[in-house]
Amino acid sequence: MKRLSVLGATGSIGHSVRKVLADAPDLYRVEAVVGGRDAAALAETARALGASFAAVADPAAGAALREALSGTGIESGAGPEAVLEAARRDTDVVVSAIVGCAGLAPTVAAFAPGRRIALANKECLVAAGAFFMAEAARLETELLPVDSEHNAIFQALAAGPQRAVEKITLTASGGPFRLKSREEIARALPQDALKHPNWNMGAKVTIDSATLMNKGLELIEAQHLFSVTAEQLDAVVHAESVVHGLVSFIDGSVTAGLALPDMCVPIAHCLAYPERVATSCRKLDLVALGRLSFEAPDVARFPALALAREVLKQGGVAATILNAANEIAVAAYLDGRIGFYGITDIVAATLDRINGGPAPSSVADALEADQLGRRTASGLLPKFAAKAS
Amino acid sequence: MKRLSVLGATGSIGHSVRKVLADAPDLYRVEAVVGGRDAAALAETARALGASFAAVADPAAGAALREALSGTGIESGAGPEAVLEAARRDTDVVVSAIVGCAGLAPTVAAFAPGRRIALANKECLVAAGAFFMAEAARLETELLPVDSEHNAIFQALAAGPQRAVEKITLTASGGPFRLKSREEIARALPQDALKHPNWNMGAKVTIDSATLMNKGLELIEAQHLFSVTAEQLDAVVHAESVVHGLVSFIDGSVTAGLALPDMCVPIAHCLAYPERVATSCRKLDLVALGRLSFEAPDVARFPALALAREVLKQGGVAATILNAANEIAVAAYLDGRIGFYGITDIVAATLDRINGGPAPSSVADALEADQLGRRTASGLLPKFAAKAS
Repeated sequence: MKRLSVLGATGSIGHSVRKVLADAPDLYRVEAVVGGRDAAALAETARALGASFAAVADPAAGAALREALSGTGIESGAGPEAVLEAARRDTDVVVSAIVGCAGLAPTVAAFAPGRRIALANKECLVAAGAFFMAEAARLETELLPVDSEHNAIFQALAAGPQRAVEKITLTASGGPFRLKSREEIARALPQDALKHPNWNMGAKVTIDSATLMNKGLELIEAQHLFSVTAEQLDAVVHAESVVHGLVSFIDGSVTAGLALPDMCVPIAHCLAYPERVATSCRKLDLVALGRLSFEAPDVARFPALALAREVLKQGGVAATILNAANEIAVAAYLDGRIGFYGITDIVAATLDRINGGPAPSSVADALEADQLGRRTASGLLPKFAAKAS
Repeated sequence: MKRLSVLGATGSIGHSVRKVLADAPDLYRVEAVVGGRDAAALAETARALGASFAAVADPAAGAALREALSGTGIESGAGPEAVLEAARRDTDVVVSAIVGCAGLAPTVAAFAPGRRIALANKECLVAAGAFFMAEAARLETELLPVDSEHNAIFQALAAGPQRAVEKITLTASGGPFRLKSREEIARALPQDALKHPNWNMGAKVTIDSATLMNKGLELIEAQHLFSVTAEQLDAVVHAESVVHGLVSFIDGSVTAGLALPDMCVPIAHCLAYPERVATSCRKLDLVALGRLSFEAPDVARFPALALAREVLKQGGVAATILNAANEIAVAAYLDGRIGFYGITDIVAATLDRINGGPAPSSVADALEADQLGRRTASGLLPKFAAKAS
């Protein structure tokens, strides 16, 4: 029986992993689970999955976790070192689903020859993509993307070969403001932006979906994952979120990955690959859907996509900075400190202010650039605060 | 340089092969080309492709072919034996594009270990599927489907594995009568039925598209090509003819093959596989299309699909009979001897009259069953002639 560890076991990806394992209990024995600060939720997850080890990132939650697991035989640990220990435990597959730059060091710590990383963390590729990919190759670690778009593209690429790929297209739902005017969007309050039409996600990524920055970040991820140029990458608005990604080959053939919007689908793929495992998730029914629509994204209303494209072309540290500035800006928007377009204005201003630099060549490098981006963006906040309406 | 022979070089598939080879002149040296009876067209094709040998099926056309090729250094032959000789010539790939049961014997004659058959002939699978697949396996011959639907499914299946396939879906354009009532369809004249919205094909297959019998035949082909049960096969009406086929896996993932409706795309795939070759054909642009629609086929208006499903379940000789009866019935419809629904009425009556039997176990067997189906259907024609309006 193969062994699995889940970094970020108490979040939404962790819940989907649990659903897949509930459908396929013989697929894996769970070695380690990692959570952020909720000791009770992590202990419940560890017990439910029959894990051997549970690590909580927040050192202050260590005692509560130990208490909650007492008598279960499940070992526990707390703090960054315990998280790294969980990541390094000997397993076949590690699900990397810790949110944000905090996921970078544990994911790289999990690299080991023959091991598979089911990658759900964005920052590994956005903030440190070149280093991350090189390190995975050096340590002969297999990377499988969990993100529905990249997972769909990974599946579509099987019709290969890679060198015959002409274009890779990611789809975007268009978010809650797809049909709104620029003026309406400019006035949008966080509660409007948080109403995502198709996916049930956290607040940060839902705002990223509303700005289309999410798609911009995904283009950057795709560039690293699939070794393509910025010119080979495209994003298309597809409101139904059913076709997640497409691969166009030089001969005119296009292959696509489809599924209902349910993270269990790509997770099941990543856990069973190259086999497949049956899931109880709802199945796609094109006749029931009736129609699928496709439109070009409007960069006038959604400047985030143009910013990401610029960063793709620029290379170097730009993506790390974009990501850091976006986190600060989204948090400020959610706090009511800036308006909706303040998010992309701050990102653009931060990129201008920092003005390039080499790509991070280590985890420490990436974290340092991330901090620089955050500091710079935070420093710019007052300048854009006035623009909140 | 790999070698290619084209059986059915002067038809529409042959023309698409020429277009692909014009885009990729270094892909193949052409060994043999085969045509039906048009010596001038075959000679022109042989010269254009630089073939070594040209065979015309009609013995009466042999002299004209020899004459047309004199001084070119291209050998020629005429009659069934010359066609088989062309098929047997030592090559890497043979395109099987002779129309009808006439394509069966030459295609099987082309089987040889390590050789690839790019299969565009329907009857090999519909009239003799079980024998044909077993014989290809026995002779270690690779079969690649040229039909856009089956080619798309072949590409989508690469995301495999085969044993994890839950469902295979072929799309149908719906033909020219997709939006017509049963009463309007019943009165349809051949010139109405010949107006296909998306594909430019021969008269027989265009009528099959109007009845949806084409999709029924393709379901039968798919059952043999992809080793799935009747229950795993589905047909969906997709008016835009852009998504050609889909594979649903047990985990909820669906992969699809897309392309603009142009036979050069699947032909390029079959000729270059597992590599890809650049073509000058128009590329798919989902944004330009805007919308893709999907609906369930209406078996009340299109009974051919129900007939094919019945035949799929029944197995044995039924598919051979269905195909033979359909050929007779379509010819009678094109001649104005029966009405549109007379086509499926005659097919149903022929299947009833013959009432089963074992699947053909040789080419001769299949041809005999085909003749039986034709005779029986022809005998039933007068009974349905009165129903023409």
